[in-house]
Amino acid sequence: MDVIAAIQRRFSVRKYGPYELEDEKLKRVLEAARLAPSARNVQEWRFVVVRDPEMREALVDAANGQQFIGEAPAVIVACAVATEHVMPCGLHCFPIDVAIAMAYMTLAAVEQGLGTCWVGAFNADRVRGLLSIPSDVIVVGLLPIGYPAVEAPPKKRLPLDEIVMQERWRD
Amino acid sequence: MDVIAAIQRRFSVRKYGPYELEDEKLKRVLEAARLAPSARNVQEWRFVVVRDPEMREALVDAANGQQFIGEAPAVIVACAVATEHVMPCGLHCFPIDVAIAMAYMTLAAVEQGLGTCWVGAFNADRVRGLLSIPSDVIVVGLLPIGYPAVEAPPKKRLPLDEIVMQERWRD
Repeated sequence: MDVIAAIQRRFSVRKYGPYELEDEKLKRVLEAARLAPSARNVQEWRFVVVRDPEMREALVDAANGQQFIGEAPAVIVACAVATEHVMPCGLHCFPIDVAIAMAYMTLAAVEQGLGTCWVGAFNADRVRGLLSIPSDVIVVGLLPIGYPAVEAPPKKRLPLDEIVMQERWRD
Repeated sequence: MDVIAAIQRRFSVRKYGPYELEDEKLKRVLEAARLAPSARNVQEWRFVVVRDPEMREALVDAANGQQFIGEAPAVIVACAVATEHVMPCGLHCFPIDVAIAMAYMTLAAVEQGLGTCWVGAFNADRVRGLLSIPSDVIVVGLLPIGYPAVEAPPKKRLPLDEIVMQERWRD
């Protein structure tokens, strides 16, 4: 599938079908993350793959009761180690680096016929506690993954000329 | 081009050929960013496209003298507005949202035969000053874009089993 087609087809899947997720497909998705770039190639991303149904239900509770997290056959919990690195521009590296890896996974998932949903609404301490994640590791996002049981809604986005400027800032 | 092929082929291009960058190709790359997801669909990304040679040279100076920024026919300066939003997990939305859009652009560029390089080593105040970017807007990254004049080096990445854990954290 073309990159641009995958970008167009990706949507936040909040309903999953009761199908198994093949190991081979999940591996391809994780491989996409592995190949992502990171500042100074630190590769500070770590991914905990949760398939156990009871643990997924516990993650639902830790994520404001968002039921689809429990419906998806797997949840990829994206974490960051070595979170102290800061770029010369002043921003921390880890949110950007882990986001790139997650973005790659969401597109690789579409290519495999799978859907995902970025989840940032969770209690980080509870997720850490459930998965025995050390306190110095930051949980950046939850990514439920599985077969979509809904159709993509139309995308609502600003037009290009509202987000792109030529040569300099324009108010 | 398949998503996974684009991910495999993308590399940090630090030498660009002296070729024009077609408007149509650049537009497709920016369109990829436009379609990216963001927390609560805030779409806080803004992109300043710098083609002017003198301004690109000034950006080189603002970015530790990284010459390839001036060689590339265009530099996409990725910015964030509405930077106050925080997700329930405690992380700011903007670095993640803008990184997704930038990740999409880097892959769409590969699909167009183009190369890019994430640049985080720059003086944010100087870049803001050069491009008249308001002080409450955060410059997240510079993305030179053009035709690569070098071959991709081999990717050095951790093996999958060092970055992926099953069911819970493992030291």
